[in-house]
Amino acid sequence: MTHQDNIIALASPSGAGAIAVIRISGKGAISLVAPFFKSVRGKNLLDQKSHTIHLGHIIDAERILDQVLTSIFKGPNSYTGEDVVEISCHGSAYIQQQIIQLFLRNGCRMAEAGEFTLRAFLNGKLDLSQAEAVADLIASENEASHQIAMQQMRGGFSTEIRNLREELLNFASLIELELDFAEEDVEFADRTQFNALLKRIREVLKKLIDSFAVGNVIKNGIPVAIVGEPNVGKSTLLNALLNEDRAIVSDIAGTTRDTIEDEISIGGIGFRFIDTAGIRETVDVVEGLGIKKTFEKIEKAQIVIYLFDAEKFKVQGSTFKIEIETIKNKYPQKNLIIVANKVDNLSEKEISNLKSQISKLLPLSAKTREGIDTLQSKLLEFVNTGALRNNETIVTNTRHYDALIKAQEEIEKVQIGMDQDIPSDLLAIDLKEALYQLGLITGQVSNDELLGNIFANFCIGK
Amino acid sequence: MTHQDNIIALASPSGAGAIAVIRISGKGAISLVAPFFKSVRGKNLLDQKSHTIHLGHIIDAERILDQVLTSIFKGPNSYTGEDVVEISCHGSAYIQQQIIQLFLRNGCRMAEAGEFTLRAFLNGKLDLSQAEAVADLIASENEASHQIAMQQMRGGFSTEIRNLREELLNFASLIELELDFAEEDVEFADRTQFNALLKRIREVLKKLIDSFAVGNVIKNGIPVAIVGEPNVGKSTLLNALLNEDRAIVSDIAGTTRDTIEDEISIGGIGFRFIDTAGIRETVDVVEGLGIKKTFEKIEKAQIVIYLFDAEKFKVQGSTFKIEIETIKNKYPQKNLIIVANKVDNLSEKEISNLKSQISKLLPLSAKTREGIDTLQSKLLEFVNTGALRNNETIVTNTRHYDALIKAQEEIEKVQIGMDQDIPSDLLAIDLKEALYQLGLITGQVSNDELLGNIFANFCIGK
Repeated sequence: MTHQDNIIALASPSGAGAIAVIRISGKGAISLVAPFFKSVRGKNLLDQKSHTIHLGHIIDAERILDQVLTSIFKGPNSYTGEDVVEISCHGSAYIQQQIIQLFLRNGCRMAEAGEFTLRAFLNGKLDLSQAEAVADLIASENEASHQIAMQQMRGGFSTEIRNLREELLNFASLIELELDFAEEDVEFADRTQFNALLKRIREVLKKLIDSFAVGNVIKNGIPVAIVGEPNVGKSTLLNALLNEDRAIVSDIAGTTRDTIEDEISIGGIGFRFIDTAGIRETVDVVEGLGIKKTFEKIEKAQIVIYLFDAEKFKVQGSTFKIEIETIKNKYPQKNLIIVANKVDNLSEKEISNLKSQISKLLPLSAKTREGIDTLQSKLLEFVNTGALRNNETIVTNTRHYDALIKAQEEIEKVQIGMDQDIPSDLLAIDLKEALYQLGLITGQVSNDELLGNIFANFCIGK
Repeated sequence: MTHQDNIIALASPSGAGAIAVIRISGKGAISLVAPFFKSVRGKNLLDQKSHTIHLGHIIDAERILDQVLTSIFKGPNSYTGEDVVEISCHGSAYIQQQIIQLFLRNGCRMAEAGEFTLRAFLNGKLDLSQAEAVADLIASENEASHQIAMQQMRGGFSTEIRNLREELLNFASLIELELDFAEEDVEFADRTQFNALLKRIREVLKKLIDSFAVGNVIKNGIPVAIVGEPNVGKSTLLNALLNEDRAIVSDIAGTTRDTIEDEISIGGIGFRFIDTAGIRETVDVVEGLGIKKTFEKIEKAQIVIYLFDAEKFKVQGSTFKIEIETIKNKYPQKNLIIVANKVDNLSEKEISNLKSQISKLLPLSAKTREGIDTLQSKLLEFVNTGALRNNETIVTNTRHYDALIKAQEEIEKVQIGMDQDIPSDLLAIDLKEALYQLGLITGQVSNDELLGNIFANFCIGK
């Protein structure tokens, strides 16, 4: 696959901003831009060093399109490994269009989604799992998903797999060699060492596969269902949880968010709050429909918050208790937090009375923020953040998970073959398959379809 | 006014994109960033040349925030004239926040709107009208507004004013000198030359003031009212006019625009279509209210398109004619285009019949696009694009316009004083006021309130 042509795309987000960055990559990127760039100091772009920035104008025939900063990166020392030019222009959509159109008319084509990173992969700048981490990194919304993506991008994950695959490849070669000398019945591959390697590979695969349970929820946010009557204070609770996070966001980005985010970052972990209509919200329409909906929500959640109005406990207490018991019995494996809201209206005595009637109750006031910290701690307790804290490798990518599972299956076959002392030629077949599956993760083995699927999920300009 | 402190802001638009650019400016910008940047090649940022780019990681304590490209600009050769660092990071909102927060904790403060450009002005990198043009450039949405902003940013406009003011200043000095020798009754300032200069200044001011009529509509879009019954095809017409423009936009930016834009670029000029409810739309509620609303719209417009359904002409022809006459009589100064839509359903003969009954009628089919080109040409005919084509200076800024008007008044006073041969001391007072007003345009005279007003309209990060 050769990539000689020049591709162009807007690399910064579209929309209003002070500046926009247009990226061009290809063998002739610098000589393509040079005739349309007039340096204020009369410099020729072609004579400039890599990693330098030049002030000048982009000129289309006689017409000045914009005053820009042009950055030059000479391959292979660039993101894609090819020559790259980045044009930092004023952030007007009109100017961006004019500049992009100018180069589209003069030897560029629009880059496809992820094509810059695809080229980086094809030119050996990144392995496949590192390339995938770039997309994860861009999508990361909290500390945990950011940390995992950063680690993956730095190669921690794929290096481990690649090294193991390398060792396995050595053994596979020795086994192949044995086949050449089949009639002489020699063993080039030390079976004891081979068994030890298989054991290590199996341990690593298991650890990585197990980490997916944590990785997946961290990447997608931990699903939480808040269950309760209407007007029990769900929005206020969400707002109280969101409070700190939101203030920071609007302060920096200069944006206002009018709607309540359904993903909230607590202690660096994303919690995704599932649409939380109350248990008896639809009771007027069809008896039981409300309960059915609530159960559906609980099934999707990893954590369930049962929220009720402390003031109404005197009247509705028995109903609340029945509902709590129903959830406990039906979903014994779910993490349940029982929260009495609006306790700011209750006396100390009334609160202790409540606590005595419901075990592990968390009294809280979303309004005064009393108990919010405790709720946050409880939410975090339910997340296995040990691996994260220890900076262990965590798999978050479904493709990797699938490949790891398949590699595990193949390695198990090899192990069984070894245990049963099967002939080298049969062992070699299983080994090849295991090597293939491991290679798929790092991209040492790849095909167009696989690459197409992966890079289609990227944004354009990356 | 000294600006020693370091300011930081996101310079690229907020939102999803491949990369984001964070800008830091201040005396210590490079040494501020250096401890938190770890070059992949072990380079120290402090030892690097201006206008160079460095690959590395932003590190907060032990935690890697992102792999970034860091660009260094050493003052005075930077946008602001101070040291500037631009960090190009992955386009995740989380990462942007983390990096910005890191530097906020370590000696930066958030930049105010337009503060980078304000510093550029205060450090003499731009004059005031050039600085204002930066904001116009970012907001430019079509060729005409872009061209005017580019010209203003390149200083064409303010250079002219500055040179005239310089000459006037010389004369003012000579007049002041005369005051020192008042008892001797000498004339240092050659009155004939002075009169010639005044004449030139008055001509330039008049030309610039007159250009505002064109400049203002070009900047804001030329207001067009489409008047007509409901279902006469207004949306289809707008879509037909928008057609080409929209295709280009969605192709490049990768965005979809679901709503009909009310500003359409035709031949590089922006036309702003005023909400166009029909003449008799509200006839059922209160007779006359619909007409009143239509008149309000026409009053806001520079061009009026009267649109009717050609098929309905047989039945409603006389009503249409009365309405057209009413508009003509009430608004003789407005540019009126009378359009018969849906002519694709009519025979040639029916069309000629229509034309014979209404003078200057434009038969059109928004559906088949027949006549759209003619309508576009007619719209452009009404815009005085001569100045634009001749690349003349055009004033678009209300502040400049106001200052030019005041300067004109003061220059008139000076002229009258000259004509009446008033004493030098009175002449000197008028001259000072004229110099002040001219200086306000270029920023040679400025004050905090003025600067505050101007830069508050900028986006953050510029």
